[in-house]
Amino acid sequence: MIIIGERINGMFKDIAKAIRERDSAVIQEWARKQEQNGARYLDINVGPSSTEPVEAMKWLVEVTQEASDLPLCLDSTKYDAIEAGLKVCKRPAMINSVPAEAAKMERVFTMAAEYGAEVICLAMSAEGIPKDAESRVALAMELVATADAFGVPIDNLYIDPLVLPCNVAQDHGPEVLETLRQIKLISDPPPKTVVGLSNVSQGTRDRELVNRVFAVMAMANGLDAAIADACDDELMAAVATARILLNMDIYCDSYIDVFKKG
Amino acid sequence: MIIIGERINGMFKDIAKAIRERDSAVIQEWARKQEQNGARYLDINVGPSSTEPVEAMKWLVEVTQEASDLPLCLDSTKYDAIEAGLKVCKRPAMINSVPAEAAKMERVFTMAAEYGAEVICLAMSAEGIPKDAESRVALAMELVATADAFGVPIDNLYIDPLVLPCNVAQDHGPEVLETLRQIKLISDPPPKTVVGLSNVSQGTRDRELVNRVFAVMAMANGLDAAIADACDDELMAAVATARILLNMDIYCDSYIDVFKKG
Repeated sequence: MIIIGERINGMFKDIAKAIRERDSAVIQEWARKQEQNGARYLDINVGPSSTEPVEAMKWLVEVTQEASDLPLCLDSTKYDAIEAGLKVCKRPAMINSVPAEAAKMERVFTMAAEYGAEVICLAMSAEGIPKDAESRVALAMELVATADAFGVPIDNLYIDPLVLPCNVAQDHGPEVLETLRQIKLISDPPPKTVVGLSNVSQGTRDRELVNRVFAVMAMANGLDAAIADACDDELMAAVATARILLNMDIYCDSYIDVFKKG
Repeated sequence: MIIIGERINGMFKDIAKAIRERDSAVIQEWARKQEQNGARYLDINVGPSSTEPVEAMKWLVEVTQEASDLPLCLDSTKYDAIEAGLKVCKRPAMINSVPAEAAKMERVFTMAAEYGAEVICLAMSAEGIPKDAESRVALAMELVATADAFGVPIDNLYIDPLVLPCNVAQDHGPEVLETLRQIKLISDPPPKTVVGLSNVSQGTRDRELVNRVFAVMAMANGLDAAIADACDDELMAAVATARILLNMDIYCDSYIDVFKKG
């Protein structure tokens, strides 16, 4: 499982301020910190309050790329902003995200095919997020089939089963784990999987504990990637350990450092 | 997943000394500590060097029962010692353990039927521990069928897939997780599952980290019980959190304390 660093997001006050003031040093510091701590992608999100999301995304991509060679995960519900980011990305990016809705799939998968981008596909439709694993998997299949029709290879797809906070939607937890497992059976090769990890712990008292326990449980069910806090050392240690126990990396006493260095 | 407290074991020097000197206070202190910290059974093992395992087991059971009402898990390869313990147990105990070998199964399942005891069944034969999940599951099926023939109900069986140290037998890890999952499919109702948790971390640098990460990964694959260190607070917090995320306990901010209190 790899970590997509979540920190360059206008939802955080320091990032929102840096975007407004075009202060590249703040952005680049977070890019370097996340990379040094083991992130393998950097999520880039201008935040919900941006008044100029297209320009802000373009600027964020450019200044991030000056500090880090990691691939970027362009995170917005505004597809013009994502396209502006794709145009200036130096290497293939990831698009975050598209739900199983026809018009949005057409727009996103067309861009993905044109720019050779990966895509995070959300297991939700215009009706919302289904509760049970079977309905989530059905939406995943619809997304995979539609991506194929638009010429996006399955290797470029990450299905997100959509994790909800465990204190308000506790019955979703086992369904998400089951969805992760079933997604690995829908095709050969199967699509990859991803979660937005911090969602699971929203409103709980010990958020980092909940995050890292869910992360390794999801890894035991086949999770390939998580958008998460790469600077949470205990999370990174837990993920590195789970990779050892799943026989994905070879054991050595310094395996946590090895994982962070990639 | 429940914790079977591992600490009353003659492998630990303080316990070996307490057994030799018949110092009940040391044993009873560990019984109380483990129960207060969330153990639901107490493992009782006279240790490999005991020169009088039958008498030592009888004494250990008696003094432990004076301090705690938890059910006991009688842990010995010497079946006379286990039988001596069963005779003085005030409530149904667990026998730890029996491999898939005809003579041993006959002896252990006969005792289990007579005393109404639960049994930990090891997925190994006289040939040793198989590497792949399929062979482990085949041994589990042999154990379940033999127990049934001796009148031991399936509800009283815990299958142990046998975890090996991840630094010497790393390829066993995913096979053990897969075994746990498949065991839940061999019958309806299925047998329960258990692991000796500390085995996975033997010889690794950060044993507690490896233990708790493996514990929650195994829980995500259906693990019901673990013989483990109930006084490892981070392990207990991780287990309590995994129970919340699997929707086994209802979320509240103090869920870790609630788990410990049972």
